[in-house]
Amino acid sequence: MKMKPLAESRVAVVGLGLMGASMAWKLRSDGAVGQVWGVVHRQETGRKAMERGIVDAVIPWDEALSADAMVLAAPVRVIVEQIRSLSAAPRRPRLVVDLGSTKREIVRAMDALPEDTLAVGGHPMCGKETSGIDAADPDLYRGCRFVVVPTLRSTPEAMEWVRDLARALGANPVEMEAERHDSLVAAISHLPYLISAALMDTVEEISREDEAVLELASSGFRDTSRLAASNVAMMLDILTTNQDAVLGMVRAYREHLDTLSAALEAGDEERLTHALERIRRARASWGASCRQV
Amino acid sequence: MKMKPLAESRVAVVGLGLMGASMAWKLRSDGAVGQVWGVVHRQETGRKAMERGIVDAVIPWDEALSADAMVLAAPVRVIVEQIRSLSAAPRRPRLVVDLGSTKREIVRAMDALPEDTLAVGGHPMCGKETSGIDAADPDLYRGCRFVVVPTLRSTPEAMEWVRDLARALGANPVEMEAERHDSLVAAISHLPYLISAALMDTVEEISREDEAVLELASSGFRDTSRLAASNVAMMLDILTTNQDAVLGMVRAYREHLDTLSAALEAGDEERLTHALERIRRARASWGASCRQV
Repeated sequence: MKMKPLAESRVAVVGLGLMGASMAWKLRSDGAVGQVWGVVHRQETGRKAMERGIVDAVIPWDEALSADAMVLAAPVRVIVEQIRSLSAAPRRPRLVVDLGSTKREIVRAMDALPEDTLAVGGHPMCGKETSGIDAADPDLYRGCRFVVVPTLRSTPEAMEWVRDLARALGANPVEMEAERHDSLVAAISHLPYLISAALMDTVEEISREDEAVLELASSGFRDTSRLAASNVAMMLDILTTNQDAVLGMVRAYREHLDTLSAALEAGDEERLTHALERIRRARASWGASCRQV
Repeated sequence: MKMKPLAESRVAVVGLGLMGASMAWKLRSDGAVGQVWGVVHRQETGRKAMERGIVDAVIPWDEALSADAMVLAAPVRVIVEQIRSLSAAPRRPRLVVDLGSTKREIVRAMDALPEDTLAVGGHPMCGKETSGIDAADPDLYRGCRFVVVPTLRSTPEAMEWVRDLARALGANPVEMEAERHDSLVAAISHLPYLISAALMDTVEEISREDEAVLELASSGFRDTSRLAASNVAMMLDILTTNQDAVLGMVRAYREHLDTLSAALEAGDEERLTHALERIRRARASWGASCRQV
């Protein structure tokens, strides 16, 4: 059975939080798909989704099984449970896609889906500090990378459908295996979170003895500690489903920090200058390449 | 001999980089002092300072000795040398102030000035990513904390003169001993720099094997790694003049990071949630108190 093209597909988005609602909204307002349905946990979210024109209909999970494609937009461990329950369901959408932040556990669950079902992992590299349907924005995905992850249930046609979905959202699809994805996001996302939390923890401990520390803190501390304010339930879901990769990155990071602090302790200015200049150039060159400062 | 009030003082700013030029410009354009003189290292800087109306005159160091107050706006180790050369000079300004980023070495040098000279340490908690006279901005100091540090050569009158200076710049003076200042800035400024550099170093090493890591990196990595792009000569001057405090902070930070990663390794979600929630609340409460996000 062939996949319907994106423009004719009835798409069920399961979970209308920031990511799911923003996707549904963009697809519906551009008429990029045949129908956009929403599956929600809380009635209130469904009411808002209908009032704001984010979806064509809010439907129960059982009815969403008749969609052409289902996009699972929940925390990783919830997605894994949803895929397992799909395996046991009386019928399934032709294609299952997800938006989870780590991919190995999800891909493992997708690999075990019945052979009549196509499945592709997805991870859009975008977000906001705020969450929930109230923060939804049809332009959220614009210009971001959308990682597309193959599974044992992927076909070239299914992969292309997901790339089309990413492009319809204004994002740039990038294909990558789950293992590689999880290792890279451990470095650029999960490690920075732990670093930021440990910094905030250090400064908070000092502030119990001397409140002035937080009064003096300005933009440098603000930026370096910003991720410490992330939603904890969301981060815990991510850290625990990427535990080995994250711990490996923490170890690598500690070695780099130790090397720098050893050079400082030794008063070896030449070595310190050499290392810090190399690092400065790497950051400046990345900042220039993506117009980030 | 009494100090002249700020409004009548002839002030020599030694070093017209970002901090010195921004200060001179603001004082001169508001007519907040009697005269503003600039002492520069490079002729080109002096020419720009005059063309842009940043100072009333550019003068050599020897002539600046006849100012009522001298503001040393150079790297910490240069400031220490300047104070030592003042000790040996045939005459001295009535008051010496500095804008150095660490205070203990500077205060030690100030303490050794001849008794006819008043001296107060200063550290305005502001800055920009860019440096030099071309980045100067008369509003740079507005709303920032300006740490005022007593020395053996401080009198209440001299301290008040520096507080007036801070207020004339639109900043909020905060009095603090050098030791305490250096410990607090190690936590909120120097530690974040090393953390950020070690993160960039970790990711740069990965990028040598897999370039995609930097292509996937987005706002979280951008913020956490931003300080790694700081000027290395400036940071080295800071780190080496605050070595013991910085190393102590790195040790404290490592313990906090180890505690978090140990909880993750143990799969202890309850402990991890508890710690990360406490940290999140601390960051959110600081962010709200200073309207930073």
